[in-house]
Amino acid sequence: MSTLTLEEIQNVAGRISDGIVRTPLLPAPSLSKLCDCEIFCKHELRQRTGSFKERGARNALFSLPDDVKQRGVIAASAGNHALALAYHGGQLGIPVTVVMPRFSPLTKQTNCAAFGADVVLEGETFDEAVALARRIEVDQKRTYIHGFDDPQIIAGQATLAIELDEQLDHFDAVIVPVGGGGLIAGVSAGLAAVRPDVEVIGVEAKRAASFSAALESNEPVSVDVQATLADGLAISTVGKNAFAIARQHVRRCVQVSEDEIALAVLRLIETECTVVEGAGAASLAALLSGQLSDLKGKRVILLLCGGNIDLPTIGRLIQRGLAADKRLIRFRAQISDRPGGLAAFAKAIGDTGANIVEINHDRVFCGADVSTVDVDCTVHTRDREHIREVFSHLETIGFPCQRCDV
Amino acid sequence: MSTLTLEEIQNVAGRISDGIVRTPLLPAPSLSKLCDCEIFCKHELRQRTGSFKERGARNALFSLPDDVKQRGVIAASAGNHALALAYHGGQLGIPVTVVMPRFSPLTKQTNCAAFGADVVLEGETFDEAVALARRIEVDQKRTYIHGFDDPQIIAGQATLAIELDEQLDHFDAVIVPVGGGGLIAGVSAGLAAVRPDVEVIGVEAKRAASFSAALESNEPVSVDVQATLADGLAISTVGKNAFAIARQHVRRCVQVSEDEIALAVLRLIETECTVVEGAGAASLAALLSGQLSDLKGKRVILLLCGGNIDLPTIGRLIQRGLAADKRLIRFRAQISDRPGGLAAFAKAIGDTGANIVEINHDRVFCGADVSTVDVDCTVHTRDREHIREVFSHLETIGFPCQRCDV
Repeated sequence: MSTLTLEEIQNVAGRISDGIVRTPLLPAPSLSKLCDCEIFCKHELRQRTGSFKERGARNALFSLPDDVKQRGVIAASAGNHALALAYHGGQLGIPVTVVMPRFSPLTKQTNCAAFGADVVLEGETFDEAVALARRIEVDQKRTYIHGFDDPQIIAGQATLAIELDEQLDHFDAVIVPVGGGGLIAGVSAGLAAVRPDVEVIGVEAKRAASFSAALESNEPVSVDVQATLADGLAISTVGKNAFAIARQHVRRCVQVSEDEIALAVLRLIETECTVVEGAGAASLAALLSGQLSDLKGKRVILLLCGGNIDLPTIGRLIQRGLAADKRLIRFRAQISDRPGGLAAFAKAIGDTGANIVEINHDRVFCGADVSTVDVDCTVHTRDREHIREVFSHLETIGFPCQRCDV
Repeated sequence: MSTLTLEEIQNVAGRISDGIVRTPLLPAPSLSKLCDCEIFCKHELRQRTGSFKERGARNALFSLPDDVKQRGVIAASAGNHALALAYHGGQLGIPVTVVMPRFSPLTKQTNCAAFGADVVLEGETFDEAVALARRIEVDQKRTYIHGFDDPQIIAGQATLAIELDEQLDHFDAVIVPVGGGGLIAGVSAGLAAVRPDVEVIGVEAKRAASFSAALESNEPVSVDVQATLADGLAISTVGKNAFAIARQHVRRCVQVSEDEIALAVLRLIETECTVVEGAGAASLAALLSGQLSDLKGKRVILLLCGGNIDLPTIGRLIQRGLAADKRLIRFRAQISDRPGGLAAFAKAIGDTGANIVEINHDRVFCGADVSTVDVDCTVHTRDREHIREVFSHLETIGFPCQRCDV
């Protein structure tokens, strides 16, 4: 497939519209101030199963011949593609089996099953899950639906472009998270058709930079992928079809660090009251990273493409984001190991307005003087300036501290 | 004031409209399924400072005589009222001083100052902050703006009713969180004017049940207030004006427990990708509590009235909600204090698919046998059924466990 025509995309949009949420495009004034441009967030995470994947999944399921619909489909996915297929398969009466690797979040396993899919929990890695899914494809004569390189999947994601076009009269750029490339292929092809002046900018996790590598080599190549907060983007090779389309329309793709992703998740919670998964926050991370300073003053759409994040993960991400934002610090201090020693130290911190989150005594590995004890202290502060105040106060009254978090 | 006329409310709506966000009213299909009725969420937390308080604050500021505008206003608030006044005072060029008690979240202090307000941090309790604010009112000839009983504040909150009326063609009930009563007074008066058939139902924290007490006594009475996750609702006496209006239109007010509030926050994150503060989740908590079973099958609007929750609090709330949802459990087991003892125990848990969150050895207070050690173990599970599986497996292979969380 070379690219998608406007007519094709419009047909797809019409076909899937009654099962897909027209998600809100909301202005984000606080983020706009923070990034010095005019930001609108496309809340695509408000699809029924929490991600854009439904557009492609519903279209792919619709486009199957009747006999295939009866035999059912199979896919491998740790998350959003599995949920999307499970839900729309249930809606359309098409049997769905998903092979989910063992590390898939408990909630996603439970939800896929609740939507009526057969969930097979197998494989220590995603590739092992794919291998099993491919065996089931052959053994049970089911049709395999690829999560980001199936042309019908890409055409489904393209319907996002039509919606953006209808929802906002003017915009300069759209920032799109990239994993396997299906989303950016669809969106960039769609916008090329309806808004050729809009720039589509990719963003991917530094730890999974397969699209940048493909842009450089001018073809999909395999890269090393490390674990990332944006687990939805952790794909080692972008799709062949997806890349063939996206390369025609996308000129640049920026990479973001784990700290930038964590901070972006934090900012979206604080300013938009919106919880996104790591992959969904990547679009904001791209702006926060300072790599897109040419967008200052421009009107920019951020695709918040997914919101499926496990609750325990949110907790960890908040801690990490607060640390990256210098609002959670850890340091070691020496205090007297006598009654009242801890009280004096805790009062000194309380007096600065900082809040003690955790405190641990180290009586074993802390040097020769048994009348003192080392404490490791985690403290919640307002900002960098407040950290300086806290340390200077502690130093003044006799508690020299050593940072443990830098 | 007896009540508000439609004309008054419409005038106020027109006057404040250019500074207030027309917040989205979004269908919530997952919550609807969970609660067996058709739920729409009014995302009022998407106001610029994160709560409905802006409507009243902007209206109250607008309604001041010019000389008062020049001298400025004063208020006491730990949170949303302070933010709302600070922001709109800044917009309208009216000096704002807010007295915030010392326990106010750091973020709210910082944001009030960033909006240009004078922030005075004083008082261990809210009442102490009020006392100081009243002194400043006299000393500096500033005008005190009451957070929930000023008639202009109540009239501002009433504009929410007009918006709901315009946004949805038909609905049966609106659930409104109640603290001092300003919001429910405005909304119930507004709906009485435009949709007299709609029932307005109050909800308050069990630990701050001042509106229920007032309904019972037929006048505002003071009740004991304990700390609650819904800190925005922790008001010991509802407002006199607010109650005089609300009592005419509100027939019932339900009370929700801390666990119900925590669970509601959790469900809104999981199903709506939306972070609300405890007070904002109370409307959903009312439904989840089972006290409103007569709403089954009805069309219900939940007012998500505020989203200002400190990040560290979100972390604590998630933990508490997971525990209330039986997805986080703590138990004590006895293991061998020999190399490999912990490994065998950890493997046994891992084999059940549960995830170890935290593990602590107790070598001191754990009985006579020094070849064994007690471990306190916190584990993430799917649901109640999964908990039974975990315990039965551990028991079978020789690790009898004792629950510590019930």
